[in-house]
Amino acid sequence: MEYSALSELLRVTADLKIISLAGGLPAPESFPLKIIKKLNDLVLKKYKGASFQYGPTDGAMVLREEIAQWLVKRNMKVVAENIGVTSGSQGALDTIGKIFIDEGDIIAVESPTYIGAIDAFAPYNPKYVEIQTDEDGVIPESLDQILKTKKIKFVYLIPTFQNPSGKTIPWERRKQIAKIIKKYNALLIEDDPYNSLRYRGKPVDPIQTLIPNNTVYLCTFSKVLAPGLRIGFYSAPKDIANLMMAAKQSVDLHTNSYGQYLAAEYLKTGDLKKHLPKILKIYKSRLETMLTSLDKYFPNNFSWTKPEGGMFVWVTGPKNFDAVKLYWKAIKNNVAYVPGTYFFATPGVGKNTMRLNFTNVSEIQIEAAIKKLSEVIKSL
Amino acid sequence: MEYSALSELLRVTADLKIISLAGGLPAPESFPLKIIKKLNDLVLKKYKGASFQYGPTDGAMVLREEIAQWLVKRNMKVVAENIGVTSGSQGALDTIGKIFIDEGDIIAVESPTYIGAIDAFAPYNPKYVEIQTDEDGVIPESLDQILKTKKIKFVYLIPTFQNPSGKTIPWERRKQIAKIIKKYNALLIEDDPYNSLRYRGKPVDPIQTLIPNNTVYLCTFSKVLAPGLRIGFYSAPKDIANLMMAAKQSVDLHTNSYGQYLAAEYLKTGDLKKHLPKILKIYKSRLETMLTSLDKYFPNNFSWTKPEGGMFVWVTGPKNFDAVKLYWKAIKNNVAYVPGTYFFATPGVGKNTMRLNFTNVSEIQIEAAIKKLSEVIKSL
Repeated sequence: MEYSALSELLRVTADLKIISLAGGLPAPESFPLKIIKKLNDLVLKKYKGASFQYGPTDGAMVLREEIAQWLVKRNMKVVAENIGVTSGSQGALDTIGKIFIDEGDIIAVESPTYIGAIDAFAPYNPKYVEIQTDEDGVIPESLDQILKTKKIKFVYLIPTFQNPSGKTIPWERRKQIAKIIKKYNALLIEDDPYNSLRYRGKPVDPIQTLIPNNTVYLCTFSKVLAPGLRIGFYSAPKDIANLMMAAKQSVDLHTNSYGQYLAAEYLKTGDLKKHLPKILKIYKSRLETMLTSLDKYFPNNFSWTKPEGGMFVWVTGPKNFDAVKLYWKAIKNNVAYVPGTYFFATPGVGKNTMRLNFTNVSEIQIEAAIKKLSEVIKSL
Repeated sequence: MEYSALSELLRVTADLKIISLAGGLPAPESFPLKIIKKLNDLVLKKYKGASFQYGPTDGAMVLREEIAQWLVKRNMKVVAENIGVTSGSQGALDTIGKIFIDEGDIIAVESPTYIGAIDAFAPYNPKYVEIQTDEDGVIPESLDQILKTKKIKFVYLIPTFQNPSGKTIPWERRKQIAKIIKKYNALLIEDDPYNSLRYRGKPVDPIQTLIPNNTVYLCTFSKVLAPGLRIGFYSAPKDIANLMMAAKQSVDLHTNSYGQYLAAEYLKTGDLKKHLPKILKIYKSRLETMLTSLDKYFPNNFSWTKPEGGMFVWVTGPKNFDAVKLYWKAIKNNVAYVPGTYFFATPGVGKNTMRLNFTNVSEIQIEAAIKKLSEVIKSL
């Protein structure tokens, strides 16, 4: 319901006059089109008909092996056999909903959390409990309290450059969270789509590295290659990986083969490693422009996160600020964003918050949009 | 459950020594690899980043428009706005299950029917009623009786070159079926993946042409371009199309963009029209070899369908013949097929039947496999 309301809200952003900070899209100029052209030929030559034939539900083995090597560099404990390829991360979330959630089951999520996950789980009618967060993301004591007092089907977290908040849970806190998950023998769904998009600071290992037997780890090629290929993946304990594969079979048989072979060669050739710095360069500068513009234009009683990576900045206004009300005025002034309230599992919470995307807009557009937004806020 | 049992059964067919008549795979030599190479370059040049960006859930408009024109040539009443692109036909079946089926709902299916549909609907726990069939497929009186006496959520049919039977419902009978569907204002799911694979005889228009407001029509590029692209599509009455789109959004956001643009150009350039005769030539000869070999080698008390197209021949043995029992003996002799019993919604039915695929095996292999199979049958 909330998701449909949001879709309706965002429909107006298709207007080309509008500068949209609302989406979650990578910049098309970040796509490695020349590399793709080269890999197109390579895939056809190397894999021939196989790259267009039906394939195994859990994915092409060459891709699963390449992903395993990639994840090992994140210090993760993975083997190709326990990795499955999905139609985007959304495909993995859909599968998780299908195998785990019975009506009324309780899922613990960050406050705020990713609305696409809520949407994927919705057909199975779960309930939610929100884990309290501060500037470092999930507060471990809040998670402990929830797992102690409630029967939780799984804990869903985006620990790195979270969507929508941009926050990253620091290493020390990850260790505490892992300890708590383990203590209650709970299941963690660690959604990590933005891992590679770090513009400053040091990488923080996924929580999966600490509790691999309690974690289903999700990631994607959408942010480092191209989202239109719809190539996501998971690494899960063997029994869960088997269940996910069985569930996925009835949904789409398997993820498109051609995209899988392209992604495999993108890793195998070293092209990802070569191309990633170009993506980071584009986004780093856009993030800096957004933070500088917020400093320059926004009223003093507003605050915002200063992410070290990812795609989003999260803005919090004073208590009486209404970001949904502001939305329509902003649209009239040709600027769009997502009102933050849509990212909370509890309806009505976070009315004074906004999610701003900085990846799919130029520096000039970002400064103009933030300036205009601050004027609209001040006019309220 | 049945589907898992079948997957287990078919696992052995991966052995390269085995001639498999079990699968439902197109021949990789039928894929237009040269055309794809050309279209790869064209898509990159023409659509650039858009062909790798996130896209609309209901599909790229250029593809939906091309599909509409294609279907109009089948005398169908369609408009691009009511066409949606799915991740294979399986994606459409998954979506149909999600929006229509509540636990215990009754679905009417052909006897036998497509097991992948049963698998897609399984998570929503429907019940099935089997429509009786003869050599021309669905018997209209049986359908009428079912719709008269039971509350049916929808009728699922594969009227053309049916999987598994290879049967095609003749035009006169389609008119009767359409009249019955309309009389009870029922909903028909017309699954038509093999429509283009006609090797002889005259095309028969889809039932959708008679009752467009009561039909969700499914088709795919898997048999005329390549299945690994996972591009299927549906045409549905507007209200149903909207529901299907909303349900699909949470499953995979959208079908892979690149495959969609490739499929659009495959139609737009006329390449499908040019390439299709090459596919038909390969399969026609294989079907003829299979029918000739069955005539030559199989015992007199066996009968089989003589399809005018599609991918399968359906064999019926004498009443006491057990095709599951034969399966393991056939495997020992390096021949595989699918025991027909797995295609019936009622467990235990059709034990004396077999589905034989002829598209992904050479003429020499087909004759050798049928000869060997007949020897194993005679040795029982």
